[in-house]
Amino acid sequence: MSGGIGSRFWPASTAERPKQFLDLLGTGKSLLQMTVDRFRNIVPLSNIIVVTNVLYRDLVLEQVPDLDPSQILCEPSRRNTAPCIAYAVAHIQGRVFHQVMGRPMAEGEQVDWTDPKLNVSIIVAPSDHLILQPERFERVINEGLAFVSNHDAMLTIGVPPTRPETNYGYIQMKPSEDKIKPVKTFTEKPNLELANVFVQSGEFVWNSGMFMWSLNTIKRELEQHLPDMMTKFALGLAQMATPKEEEFIQEIFPTCPNISIDYGVMEKAKDVYVVLADFDWSDLGTWGAVYDASAKDEEGNVALAGEVTFSDSTGNIVCLPEGYTALVRGLNHYIVAQADHTLMICPRREENDIEKVKASVKSKNRI
Amino acid sequence: MSGGIGSRFWPASTAERPKQFLDLLGTGKSLLQMTVDRFRNIVPLSNIIVVTNVLYRDLVLEQVPDLDPSQILCEPSRRNTAPCIAYAVAHIQGRVFHQVMGRPMAEGEQVDWTDPKLNVSIIVAPSDHLILQPERFERVINEGLAFVSNHDAMLTIGVPPTRPETNYGYIQMKPSEDKIKPVKTFTEKPNLELANVFVQSGEFVWNSGMFMWSLNTIKRELEQHLPDMMTKFALGLAQMATPKEEEFIQEIFPTCPNISIDYGVMEKAKDVYVVLADFDWSDLGTWGAVYDASAKDEEGNVALAGEVTFSDSTGNIVCLPEGYTALVRGLNHYIVAQADHTLMICPRREENDIEKVKASVKSKNRI
Repeated sequence: MSGGIGSRFWPASTAERPKQFLDLLGTGKSLLQMTVDRFRNIVPLSNIIVVTNVLYRDLVLEQVPDLDPSQILCEPSRRNTAPCIAYAVAHIQGRVFHQVMGRPMAEGEQVDWTDPKLNVSIIVAPSDHLILQPERFERVINEGLAFVSNHDAMLTIGVPPTRPETNYGYIQMKPSEDKIKPVKTFTEKPNLELANVFVQSGEFVWNSGMFMWSLNTIKRELEQHLPDMMTKFALGLAQMATPKEEEFIQEIFPTCPNISIDYGVMEKAKDVYVVLADFDWSDLGTWGAVYDASAKDEEGNVALAGEVTFSDSTGNIVCLPEGYTALVRGLNHYIVAQADHTLMICPRREENDIEKVKASVKSKNRI
Repeated sequence: MSGGIGSRFWPASTAERPKQFLDLLGTGKSLLQMTVDRFRNIVPLSNIIVVTNVLYRDLVLEQVPDLDPSQILCEPSRRNTAPCIAYAVAHIQGRVFHQVMGRPMAEGEQVDWTDPKLNVSIIVAPSDHLILQPERFERVINEGLAFVSNHDAMLTIGVPPTRPETNYGYIQMKPSEDKIKPVKTFTEKPNLELANVFVQSGEFVWNSGMFMWSLNTIKRELEQHLPDMMTKFALGLAQMATPKEEEFIQEIFPTCPNISIDYGVMEKAKDVYVVLADFDWSDLGTWGAVYDASAKDEEGNVALAGEVTFSDSTGNIVCLPEGYTALVRGLNHYIVAQADHTLMICPRREENDIEKVKASVKSKNRI
């Protein structure tokens, strides 16, 4: 999933080049490139599908040039993760049918999707998260794939919490001796008090937003919880993975509801399981999260991009356009970010206020 | 005088575009343009001569397009104010001779420079200072011109001090009832203790770096105190204000000493007078001076260039490249300056440390 706009990383992340396409950690690779690389050892590259906004088709191809253009699914409008996943599921149906049956699906053809030959396993992953220890990641994914290929159930990856983070969703597990545990509840971002209770209880893990399931399971669950949307996708199944797919998607996608897979499906479904991550993970959802994840100098400063000289300064994170340099003197615990001729300077602890300030600027200019 | 490089305004002022060519106060005019404008009411434009480095010839013509190229004298190398003034004096000799005598000076011609017809008055002024109240400036200049056309003496403009500034030179006056007073001593930048004594004594004024004198006076004083340099200029007098001037200057200018007019002439000369300025003046020699001189918002912030939104911020000065925007949040009493892909962030009170930090960066990179 690579269609988001990452507005919280303004001005570094913009609608023209959202977060997943940025080298946010200064590794020389964008988050999307690192995500694709993580999966190269797990599945053949030809089985990786990037769902993005039509605006970013060329950016995806530029950053991952060994993808075939047919592996990039383009959303014609911004929705949320449920329509994104429904589109990918429909595309996979069309492609798997053709590959397994040796012919494209006929218009209106009735297909038995419970046929084990057609029932492939699917991994869903955001393209803009940080995952350290790729070997552990690989092992968790392979355990999960083994599970979903033997169980008609949905599986999430849960990350044992290390702090009462209020920016994450939480998953409560049912008691179980198994490594992969049944899910009791999903909770959206809690307040700090609740987050503390969650972490101390030991029953909760962070919702990583990564899922595994078989084609048949997710298709059935989507049909059960979002039937109107799935009826639309069903009408175009014969167009999926053919040259007609794009035209069909342009027609129906904008009519899909703006709803997340968590809210639209996971929270309502039975038979949801969680596999615990033993790798370090961050959704890199804030400058603070990027700061935490980045290599720091002796004074705790992070220079994400650009050549930055820090003098008498501690705890800053600086992100400049390529080729820019900076001299930062006597500054402590700030975010300094620049892109597209826009500079932002803000204390790290006030990052959440930036959206409000931006909104007030916009409304002022409107007067 | 428009040849300096203003290194203290890094990164806004660079060798490519020094301070005098910048719209440092956000008025839409560069300091050079404002300086030329101040003199338009005092002398005909054709009598304004801009001495600059050869690098900036086109920049001067671009900013003051109604100057004739012959009014721009180009220094082939960086020296200080004494060679700059000596060059201008030689040029004026050549030009005045031609205009008064109706023919160019002959090679080796002996000229009686005490001839009143040749003895024009000269005003010397830096091009990168701020002067408020142009009408008062005009009156002071006219008083000074009247004085030097009747006295064979050098005249400086002194600014009554408003604070014990340690970045300025001071002029001590002899007691006098006259409006234009004899000078007792020149003192370079004093320490704070001495500056306090100077200001409290009432005998001292700031040295503005602006001078008035007649051609014959400054020629004689330069010859007396810097005889080697003046011997060189004398050899090319017949080339001055002719197409051969530039070639001659390219040959001798680099051999001139790197010395200021204050140190090389004024401090050693007798018969130096000072006329008191009743206009507000700043040499804009520091970001602090520019901050003091600039219009501020209600929270005391200055946005010199670029569109800056301040939020929960006070006492900052921000200077961005044209077309740039910034959101500055939770920042107090800083300089934020950017140019040529280089950003500088520094507390206003630590401006003087920037040069040291820059030097240490350079020496680090050399290793």
